[in-house]
Amino acid sequence: MSETPDALPDADRRTRTGIPEIVFAEGKPPERTLDLLADLRRLDPAGPALATRCSAPVLDGAPDAFHGEEVAVDRVGRTVTVGPVPPPRGDVVVVTAGTTDLPVARECTATLAALGVGARTVADVGVAGLHRLLSRLEDVRRADVVVVVAGMDGALPGVVAGLVAAPVIGVPTSVGYGVAAGGRAALATMLAACSPGLVVVNIDNGVGAAAHAAKVLRRA
Amino acid sequence: MSETPDALPDADRRTRTGIPEIVFAEGKPPERTLDLLADLRRLDPAGPALATRCSAPVLDGAPDAFHGEEVAVDRVGRTVTVGPVPPPRGDVVVVTAGTTDLPVARECTATLAALGVGARTVADVGVAGLHRLLSRLEDVRRADVVVVVAGMDGALPGVVAGLVAAPVIGVPTSVGYGVAAGGRAALATMLAACSPGLVVVNIDNGVGAAAHAAKVLRRA
Amino acid sequence: MSETPDALPDADRRTRTGIPEIVFAEGKPPERTLDLLADLRRLDPAGPALATRCSAPVLDGAPDAFHGEEVAVDRVGRTVTVGPVPPPRGDVVVVTAGTTDLPVARECTATLAALGVGARTVADVGVAGLHRLLSRLEDVRRADVVVVVAGMDGALPGVVAGLVAAPVIGVPTSVGYGVAAGGRAALATMLAACSPGLVVVNIDNGVGAAAHAAKVLRRA
Amino acid sequence: MSETPDALPDADRRTRTGIPEIVFAEGKPPERTLDLLADLRRLDPAGPALATRCSAPVLDGAPDAFHGEEVAVDRVGRTVTVGPVPPPRGDVVVVTAGTTDLPVARECTATLAALGVGARTVADVGVAGLHRLLSRLEDVRRADVVVVVAGMDGALPGVVAGLVAAPVIGVPTSVGYGVAAGGRAALATMLAACSPGLVVVNIDNGVGAAAHAAKVLRRA
Amino acid sequence: MSETPDALPDADRRTRTGIPEIVFAEGKPPERTLDLLADLRRLDPAGPALATRCSAPVLDGAPDAFHGEEVAVDRVGRTVTVGPVPPPRGDVVVVTAGTTDLPVARECTATLAALGVGARTVADVGVAGLHRLLSRLEDVRRADVVVVVAGMDGALPGVVAGLVAAPVIGVPTSVGYGVAAGGRAALATMLAACSPGLVVVNIDNGVGAAAHAAKVLRRA
Amino acid sequence: MSETPDALPDADRRTRTGIPEIVFAEGKPPERTLDLLADLRRLDPAGPALATRCSAPVLDGAPDAFHGEEVAVDRVGRTVTVGPVPPPRGDVVVVTAGTTDLPVARECTATLAALGVGARTVADVGVAGLHRLLSRLEDVRRADVVVVVAGMDGALPGVVAGLVAAPVIGVPTSVGYGVAAGGRAALATMLAACSPGLVVVNIDNGVGAAAHAAKVLRRA
Amino acid sequence: MSETPDALPDADRRTRTGIPEIVFAEGKPPERTLDLLADLRRLDPAGPALATRCSAPVLDGAPDAFHGEEVAVDRVGRTVTVGPVPPPRGDVVVVTAGTTDLPVARECTATLAALGVGARTVADVGVAGLHRLLSRLEDVRRADVVVVVAGMDGALPGVVAGLVAAPVIGVPTSVGYGVAAGGRAALATMLAACSPGLVVVNIDNGVGAAAHAAKVLRRA
Amino acid sequence: MSETPDALPDADRRTRTGIPEIVFAEGKPPERTLDLLADLRRLDPAGPALATRCSAPVLDGAPDAFHGEEVAVDRVGRTVTVGPVPPPRGDVVVVTAGTTDLPVARECTATLAALGVGARTVADVGVAGLHRLLSRLEDVRRADVVVVVAGMDGALPGVVAGLVAAPVIGVPTSVGYGVAAGGRAALATMLAACSPGLVVVNIDNGVGAAAHAAKVLRRA
Repeated sequence: MSETPDALPDADRRTRTGIPEIVFAEGKPPERTLDLLADLRRLDPAGPALATRCSAPVLDGAPDAFHGEEVAVDRVGRTVTVGPVPPPRGDVVVVTAGTTDLPVARECTATLAALGVGARTVADVGVAGLHRLLSRLEDVRRADVVVVVAGMDGALPGVVAGLVAAPVIGVPTSVGYGVAAGGRAALATMLAACSPGLVVVNIDNGVGAAAHAAKVLRRA
Repeated sequence: MSETPDALPDADRRTRTGIPEIVFAEGKPPERTLDLLADLRRLDPAGPALATRCSAPVLDGAPDAFHGEEVAVDRVGRTVTVGPVPPPRGDVVVVTAGTTDLPVARECTATLAALGVGARTVADVGVAGLHRLLSRLEDVRRADVVVVVAGMDGALPGVVAGLVAAPVIGVPTSVGYGVAAGGRAALATMLAACSPGLVVVNIDNGVGAAAHAAKVLRRA
Repeated sequence: MSETPDALPDADRRTRTGIPEIVFAEGKPPERTLDLLADLRRLDPAGPALATRCSAPVLDGAPDAFHGEEVAVDRVGRTVTVGPVPPPRGDVVVVTAGTTDLPVARECTATLAALGVGARTVADVGVAGLHRLLSRLEDVRRADVVVVVAGMDGALPGVVAGLVAAPVIGVPTSVGYGVAAGGRAALATMLAACSPGLVVVNIDNGVGAAAHAAKVLRRA
Repeated sequence: MSETPDALPDADRRTRTGIPEIVFAEGKPPERTLDLLADLRRLDPAGPALATRCSAPVLDGAPDAFHGEEVAVDRVGRTVTVGPVPPPRGDVVVVTAGTTDLPVARECTATLAALGVGARTVADVGVAGLHRLLSRLEDVRRADVVVVVAGMDGALPGVVAGLVAAPVIGVPTSVGYGVAAGGRAALATMLAACSPGLVVVNIDNGVGAAAHAAKVLRRA
Repeated sequence: MSETPDALPDADRRTRTGIPEIVFAEGKPPERTLDLLADLRRLDPAGPALATRCSAPVLDGAPDAFHGEEVAVDRVGRTVTVGPVPPPRGDVVVVTAGTTDLPVARECTATLAALGVGARTVADVGVAGLHRLLSRLEDVRRADVVVVVAGMDGALPGVVAGLVAAPVIGVPTSVGYGVAAGGRAALATMLAACSPGLVVVNIDNGVGAAAHAAKVLRRA
Repeated sequence: MSETPDALPDADRRTRTGIPEIVFAEGKPPERTLDLLADLRRLDPAGPALATRCSAPVLDGAPDAFHGEEVAVDRVGRTVTVGPVPPPRGDVVVVTAGTTDLPVARECTATLAALGVGARTVADVGVAGLHRLLSRLEDVRRADVVVVVAGMDGALPGVVAGLVAAPVIGVPTSVGYGVAAGGRAALATMLAACSPGLVVVNIDNGVGAAAHAAKVLRRA
Repeated sequence: MSETPDALPDADRRTRTGIPEIVFAEGKPPERTLDLLADLRRLDPAGPALATRCSAPVLDGAPDAFHGEEVAVDRVGRTVTVGPVPPPRGDVVVVTAGTTDLPVARECTATLAALGVGARTVADVGVAGLHRLLSRLEDVRRADVVVVVAGMDGALPGVVAGLVAAPVIGVPTSVGYGVAAGGRAALATMLAACSPGLVVVNIDNGVGAAAHAAKVLRRA
Repeated sequence: MSETPDALPDADRRTRTGIPEIVFAEGKPPERTLDLLADLRRLDPAGPALATRCSAPVLDGAPDAFHGEEVAVDRVGRTVTVGPVPPPRGDVVVVTAGTTDLPVARECTATLAALGVGARTVADVGVAGLHRLLSRLEDVRRADVVVVVAGMDGALPGVVAGLVAAPVIGVPTSVGYGVAAGGRAALATMLAACSPGLVVVNIDNGVGAAAHAAKVLRRA
């Protein structure tokens, strides 16, 4: 049987696409995640190495595994960032509908930080209490790009996209029960929204929204 | 083979439930629909007889079939009402998200009329342009019951239910394309909404929303 | 990154909609649920604060966390109510199809109590043994609003709605196996029922049925 | 390319299983259906040849195609029977929930007739008006086998199966709209019913219910 | 709140339908299952009391809970039978496609025993090795009723139903992976089979197949 | 019943979001579409009025209905543009996988033109013949924003997003058969792609991709 | 807007993969299909040009459009082949379950012919009458590759794959009603089959099965 | 009740189909898996006995259970092989899209080894970084058969099948989140791919791909 390696980190991805390879830790043994972070740190030193969906052993083990390096661990967003992050540029607002959407929002902001993009959060402004959003609208309108994270009915991104001129990215979350369980209802709501120019990423994909936002800002 | 009749109109339904049997014309030959209207008119003369989802032959043929009777035909809502409607009581607002939701809204208002309930319409106030709803909010808040008809993302009922104290009934419509085609996305959105006390009926079921509204008003 | 708070309790919701914000505890850390209950108790003292879908640590910890306050814990319905409940008004009957539907029925009755609505239960009267329902029919018919909780085939709400004049709200439950697992079969059955005016809420959403019932009674 | 024939009528099926091959006409050119009926009549003369789901050209053309033979055409049930039917034996009751379920019920009774089984119909007794069923209950209880045909919510077979001792076969129909469109909601309801011993066939499969009923009666 | 009991055992079900109420233990606390068995044993002493889908505490606790009674525990089929079973009558063959379908087959045979029906098993004769079925065909053909239990592709019941004259009941199981996970593929295969008169019950519903078989035999 | 109008064109949308209201003609009577175009032309004269998904009567009737105005009709993309388009700014490449994706690509380029954005097309470069894409790669890489339109397996957007630094928007189309029919397979493929920062719009939503691209360019 | 052509026939595909580009005519205007056939004939003259899923205008117009060329039109399989087919090599048996599966089988055999592969057909041997298959088994076993085309329950490929040593390819068809409508039930059955080495293509994809069979034979 | 055995190992399968019976360990008690391996080793000694989807107790217990025999345990692929493997013949390349697809690839290569087929692996060459595949293309093109294992979007097999002349088998994996969870998105992508002759097996079915590859090679 072949002796080829099991993993081929795509160290050239930052050059081709502007976004480095990011380690998706779910379903990988903790050591493999830490090894891949080390590989990326070595092969692509132009920026920090990032792992998402990290389990407790990765979150706990990263500071020791990379001591001597700057290591940022976000236990809510389940991310590990190894190496110094670039100075932030641009202004992305990450809006959430409810408090249980917070982990996905944090995955997004940690990714933005690793990509050198400035981020603010406007939390818990779901459409059941519209005044919360309206009172923060000027904050949202100032942003270069808006990311809206929402589970359950996923109605918030469509409402926001009807109110602001910046590009809006919807991130459905798997938060919910009954017909909302797993996030497909929220995903469909966002795809079906009538507001102009709302785009969508996969359920719970905070990292994808951040990558798109960063690409948009690079074009600016 | 048995000689029993093929149809047993439930003439006692009005007494038991407060709502008469209503003829669902889809999938029935036009003559059968007209015959069933005549049966109901005869067996349950306490109110008008109503048929919904009528095809053109029924809509066209009803005035002749029941001449001498009051006949109301709504070509947009595809309803036929035979017999005098009761004087309206109460105040139901039927809100629509877009202009293509109009046929379902009309099925609802025609049913409300046949049940002796007063109805107003607030049309085309979907969440992509939130100011349209907010500018009509006092009109909506005055209602005893609010029916919200929406296809595509179906986000409007959840927004309305977060803004008013009256009971709110969501009616998803089959309007839409892609993931919204057929109305299941709108249905899921309404069921998953976080707003307090929003209830839902089947896709395109304007008559069901009207029946529930009438029952609520009878209790008042 | 932003310093805004992660949660914005909607203390004004009771004023706008007649229903206070209710804490959905699933997916939240226990301390956060207890904190949110305390926030609501402080910001919206006009009625008790309620949390649903509470895990054991919340159910166990609530009496201590709020000592000095009236605290009601329902371990079957998984609810915590903090503060004195209003005197009950009106008469809602909560009907269940089977004994495994009980937790959802209890979530509903606990919510009704917190909203100041009187509630009775008629349990285990599923359609496989119709005499059980028929023998309790007069009890059900006396109610102002009827909530029917059913898993598996979800056939009971349609049968009840064909027999009573009060508004009927169907609550599908996730009880079942095979095609019934998760509650979507029961949900579809209720949405497709031919009985006049049956409305439906999300799977296992006892709190939503209670909120709608309370809104209906306030209109009375 | 091969010279083998395109169709191999299974003339031995009656001997093996007690049920002859039956021509499913949907998707076949009219001439092919008539040819297959002729083949079966010739190869398996022990009983009549039956075709179901016949289009107008088959229904119209059959009497001429088989003149000199007894030909029974049911335009509602869309069946053609060629050859004398056996004297009926046993007693099957075919119950329908609504008038739009009639075509499937007729497919079932025509098949029963071709198989030499006696059949009665109890029509339009859906659960929205339960008294209609209860008033016919003794008629239903006398049967050897009960077939219950229902679209929309499909709740009737479960109710019937809780009331009678005979074997009950549920036939979901594609009648309905919204979540009921196509018959999957009715199918799931029947599969999920709690009543003892209810069995189910494919959506709109009147012929399958008849075949099972005939097999049960042969065992008697 | 109401003082009515949470459970109403349907002790009359045996009289009405020929099949007693059977306790579905899944989702019930172990003590409640044992209590319901005791209630049924007392209220309906004409036959044994049966519980299905029992967890280990019920399987372990039943002999002590009912000591002095005959108690049969099947750990593979997860059933508990309390009280003497009637002498077996009739001959049902339960056929399985693979060894992992055994638990459902055992639920079926335990139910048949409790209902006083004789049962034999023909195991592991799935269609991937057709000779296994063909070599047992005479055994299968002798039966009064055939139950075929199959997961994965669920193809076996259709093959059997094309080979025997007895009524055939298909039981899909949740055994499988990928598209077969949960049993919906097997269920659809059985419903779509072209063989005459195959009927189907819910996924993993061994008890339902047994109840139908018993009803068929009572008619004999 | 209310005298409010059925439609409320959102003439302020261009100001709020940078994108004007666009008439979705599907499901609207042709005259209503033409009326709405006229309303928008009058109420929002800052740019041309656009209608998408136009039927033949709208495409045929528009030049006469707006004679004296510049009218652009695209029969492949089914769009009508009324009024002079702004001079193009920026560079969007619209890539298609196959020739049947062309109508959606044309809806996108017509919308870009109406919004004042420059657009080029790179057609028929699906992944089954990868050299077609690779030979056009420099053309694609030069773009400010890339829109990739693909039906069937929907694999092309993920491949493109792994090769370019510009923001990439995937548009699944309803082109396909079997599991691909309706576009859900293509949609899922794009949402699940591993390439960095790919975002997605609803099936066949060429206008949504154009609106997002325009918003991105405005930020530049 | 760009002046690039809308279609790029992949004339190099035969060299790269052994299989030429084949025109999928569905959704294309008839003239475009005929133009693409002419392009392929010119650019890739090493073998005939093939179009599948042709509408009547293509089937009718091809002989004239290519007069002077050999043109084979199969009206059942809806294929057009332009140019001389290579002499057949190898032996593929195409087995069908029922007569309505014939069009897909014919698409497969026409493609095999165009690819220079010998093909035989064994028709109408579905599992409801197993003797039909068993009596043809030696014919099937002699083949180099077996293609099995089946709709409804799709059980036949799994049965065949358990009986022969040749590679077996299953082709689900969209033939069927109820749960079988559209072919997803047949597809799932084939994917879930336990027989060793059965592979599957998309629903109704006769051309894909032929291409795989040809690739297998080229390796021989 | 019957005394027949619960399992009938199909020892003749190797003779009939060229592929021996393989034990699918999931859902079986560990001892049963080990017993079935011993049965197969004894009844079908022409080659090694293989079990897949083994739990830790089987992987741990196999060496002792079969000491004196050659036993190969793959903890990543979860396979146990008992008995000497035949010398490898032919050349199959197993390509994977990502590192989390490795367990399925290993199940495939272990099965190939047991069937006497030579296998190489080309790992982690997913389409997000196309250069990884292109740089290995000559390695892939040399193979007799190519197996491509991919989760998430499942796009890799279609790309590979457009580049090589060997038969290509796609294996979707259950790797992924959101719309990709469980592998259905990857499965649909592969079935819908436009590349010529790509065939597909069930999700995570490494053993099925290996069996088909072995059958293809035997024909060579």
